[in-house]
Amino acid sequence: MQKQQPSQSPPRHPSKPGHPDLVADWESLQRVFLQPENDAVKATLVKYMEQILFGLQDFLKEHVGITEAVSLEALSRRFMESRIEIHPRRKLADVIQGIIEDIAPYAVNVASPYFVGHMTSALPFFMVHLQTIAAALNQNLVKLETSKVASIYERQVLAKLHRRIFQRSAAFYAAHIQHPESTLGSFVGDGTLANLTALWVARNRRFQPTEGFEGVEKEGISTAMAAYGVKRAVVLVSGMAHYSLRKAGGVLGIGNRQIIPIDTDVNGGMQIRHLTQAIRDCSGPASQTAIIAVVGVAGTTETGHVDPLDEIARVCAGENIHFHVDAAWGGPTLMSEKYGGLLTGIERADSVTIDGHKQFYMPMGCGMVYFRDPLAMDAVAYHAAYVNRPGSVDLGIKSIEGSRSASSLILGSALDIMGSGGYAVLIDHGIETAREFAREIRQRDLFELTTPPQLNILTYRLCPPALQKRLHSPDPSVRRRTCREINRINIQLQREQREAGRSFVSRTTLPPAPGEEEGRVVLRAVIMNPMTSRKVVRDILDEQAAIYTAMASA
Amino acid sequence: MQKQQPSQSPPRHPSKPGHPDLVADWESLQRVFLQPENDAVKATLVKYMEQILFGLQDFLKEHVGITEAVSLEALSRRFMESRIEIHPRRKLADVIQGIIEDIAPYAVNVASPYFVGHMTSALPFFMVHLQTIAAALNQNLVKLETSKVASIYERQVLAKLHRRIFQRSAAFYAAHIQHPESTLGSFVGDGTLANLTALWVARNRRFQPTEGFEGVEKEGISTAMAAYGVKRAVVLVSGMAHYSLRKAGGVLGIGNRQIIPIDTDVNGGMQIRHLTQAIRDCSGPASQTAIIAVVGVAGTTETGHVDPLDEIARVCAGENIHFHVDAAWGGPTLMSEKYGGLLTGIERADSVTIDGHKQFYMPMGCGMVYFRDPLAMDAVAYHAAYVNRPGSVDLGIKSIEGSRSASSLILGSALDIMGSGGYAVLIDHGIETAREFAREIRQRDLFELTTPPQLNILTYRLCPPALQKRLHSPDPSVRRRTCREINRINIQLQREQREAGRSFVSRTTLPPAPGEEEGRVVLRAVIMNPMTSRKVVRDILDEQAAIYTAMASA
Repeated sequence: MQKQQPSQSPPRHPSKPGHPDLVADWESLQRVFLQPENDAVKATLVKYMEQILFGLQDFLKEHVGITEAVSLEALSRRFMESRIEIHPRRKLADVIQGIIEDIAPYAVNVASPYFVGHMTSALPFFMVHLQTIAAALNQNLVKLETSKVASIYERQVLAKLHRRIFQRSAAFYAAHIQHPESTLGSFVGDGTLANLTALWVARNRRFQPTEGFEGVEKEGISTAMAAYGVKRAVVLVSGMAHYSLRKAGGVLGIGNRQIIPIDTDVNGGMQIRHLTQAIRDCSGPASQTAIIAVVGVAGTTETGHVDPLDEIARVCAGENIHFHVDAAWGGPTLMSEKYGGLLTGIERADSVTIDGHKQFYMPMGCGMVYFRDPLAMDAVAYHAAYVNRPGSVDLGIKSIEGSRSASSLILGSALDIMGSGGYAVLIDHGIETAREFAREIRQRDLFELTTPPQLNILTYRLCPPALQKRLHSPDPSVRRRTCREINRINIQLQREQREAGRSFVSRTTLPPAPGEEEGRVVLRAVIMNPMTSRKVVRDILDEQAAIYTAMASA
Repeated sequence: MQKQQPSQSPPRHPSKPGHPDLVADWESLQRVFLQPENDAVKATLVKYMEQILFGLQDFLKEHVGITEAVSLEALSRRFMESRIEIHPRRKLADVIQGIIEDIAPYAVNVASPYFVGHMTSALPFFMVHLQTIAAALNQNLVKLETSKVASIYERQVLAKLHRRIFQRSAAFYAAHIQHPESTLGSFVGDGTLANLTALWVARNRRFQPTEGFEGVEKEGISTAMAAYGVKRAVVLVSGMAHYSLRKAGGVLGIGNRQIIPIDTDVNGGMQIRHLTQAIRDCSGPASQTAIIAVVGVAGTTETGHVDPLDEIARVCAGENIHFHVDAAWGGPTLMSEKYGGLLTGIERADSVTIDGHKQFYMPMGCGMVYFRDPLAMDAVAYHAAYVNRPGSVDLGIKSIEGSRSASSLILGSALDIMGSGGYAVLIDHGIETAREFAREIRQRDLFELTTPPQLNILTYRLCPPALQKRLHSPDPSVRRRTCREINRINIQLQREQREAGRSFVSRTTLPPAPGEEEGRVVLRAVIMNPMTSRKVVRDILDEQAAIYTAMASA
């Protein structure tokens, strides 16, 4: 085979001394598949892990990394190759080195204590090890024949979280934890798929088979509506719900305009009187409307607020409506003895979404959905001929995905290593630091707190005292102009701080405040890094104040 | 805080000498988040990786591991704990040790050359390193602000595969590879989600907005059908298509009974005359049917066969129907100069599914879907207020999932390390070994080849000569009894071989052969491990023959 460019940097593959050329051939292929038997090769492979664990992390100390010191456009120009070369371009060592030098510096340092803008954070270092274990075992949870004990282990992890959420009896868990016909929940890719799964189940249960109708899964939405004598199917959601619910409405064929937002109060909680009114509007034969589910949020993406879950649960129970809670963000608050009570009512939900890669601090790609009723997921069961293990049930039968990794091994191990108490320390720190952040904002004339933190997210804006006064002008056009001016300031402020590369808060737009004429552009801080101390919070605000001063004098 | 059980085995956490008790507190929490500065801690963390890389692999040498030497029931009884303890139960070292001792021996050794039963295999060792890198960087590809260069890198990887599939011009790729408005494809969790995404796009394009109708995504299936004057929407699929397509029909609200299987020929390829007939049946106003897509398969799950893609493409082009190819399994065949031609016609598809965790040998959880038209995915775009990066487009806008990991970094790096030539060696080995397997079967009287390998999958059954003769009896009841007898033998054979724990082939059921009265239970072999040699193939058949001899004499 043709010779290839020489490897660009040491270390070279130790079993190929003096032959730096890279060719795609049978011999080199066998080498990458065989577990190395000789100690020199083993030592090299371990050395690579050292590079990954520590070399990669060095860039962290430099900057937050969303800065455009190298612009996106310039970066884009470096990644314009669409051909796949026949022969290897690089060896593993060079790939690792390349990632450390050419990728990591332009990735986002989500682990920085000053990165408080999104729901992605520092990972405890052991998570990287656990992810490595899952990759090395390479089990496929779609069926027992490619996972065996990993499927059994997963059932235990699902039961642990289910119990934490729904608090059913010990006898309940003894009966269901390993019962092949019971399904306490499902691991999926992320919260979006978890919400989709919950609404999929709710849709199928609302339009279940009846006389002369074989169910919506088989016959489709249109036939289902005819069978049930309705013209539309709706989902009532918090006005602050994540857009994944609209997406689920689109995917599931009910139409995303049928995901009806219910007005929230000033703190972002769903207003029960609006919910009950919406249910009344959809009820009765004249409305020709089926309500598939009501969705409450435990930790909204934008402000971190929790809907009045207990009251929503009461309403749904009275009307026999599926109650789903999107706790993708807030779910792990249940680990905290101090703050778990903020989610009271979640135990009465029919289904609950939780993300592992958010406040369980797992690597990306671990959503979960839980169902109070262990038979609920029967509504979405699918079988395949080549999966055929008698007397036991493959987890892939009731799951929106097919092949998937052993994320449960990571979460289960993390629960062993952290204990609920370890997670509680993180949760408590996040909530208390967010409160401290809010206090700090209230003490500064230049800033205005727009939503106080209920969990560990808060929004605020920079609003100079002179402009604050003009917000209360009797003249609506003055108020409107002032709103726009404040919005403009906050957009520029957020961008300049990001570009400076020391800290990162995100920005979003909230509805107009009473009397204001425009949606409010606000800064959004998410506190999920235990290294984000009070000092860090003050530094971030100090920097924002300094940026504004420079802007104002420019 | 309360004291906890002492750690069960060394090594202990080196920074806590003499204090083996595990407590969930602030101090221990900080330790797991902080990157260690001292060399002793670093050395320990690297040591753990050595345990993971090599300790974990030792169990591989023992057995294939689907045996029920420890029964599922007995295993299940070990995982019955549904409480989460407050304090840590174990340290990382103990968790790793526990996985090596208590989990790995009961997991499935998918890496064994004798494990030829499913589409899950040995990984090249560098894949584990690459997965570790992705975890350590912890980028979230949902948006630029949590991924930056990783999003740009991903676009390049998508373009590389897109080009390999669709072979569009260099100018096309130069224009689209980094163009924010262009979407060449999407990384998703697996092939199921890739197929779902393809049909989601096809559905939305078939029922796109028209005068007085805002599109199916917004208004739902029922309104869409009314707007387009149809009573049903169908997808025409190969009779051998994966069940994920039926699932997609159910999820998308068209009903899984509208996923219409088209008859296949004896080799499993879709019969074009049946396809054109089905299209005719669905056409014309009288049928009141909308065809959303036609789906061909490149590598069916059960037999590995490839539909006549070129002919299907021609039919679909003539009728202006979306043509999707499920190449989850067979897609990487395009890396082989020798066998890539088996997929001719795939370049004319509108969309293509490929799985990274199958024949790209990546860790679990990497599906991909590609679209010939870079604007096709506009039909499934969603925006969120808190994602707001001017002048650039977040990858999460057009994706069924939200948060997800940098799988593209793994695939892109693997392409660098392997070259297309490296993958071609694997593909060629699989196909040629499968052919050798088939030759070996043909040479043995005891076995019957039921589907010859077109790619690297074959099915066969054990069928003793005496029974083979009786299959041709003029008496249908004799034929039926004989079929059942052969099925029973193969079921028992597959199970006994699995239980013996040396090798694993799977089993599935094919339609009756001409003249036979029953579906045929067959053994299914998937050759995707370069260590699966001709000797291994002969060993597997020898073992089956021996098992049968023992069965027959029992």
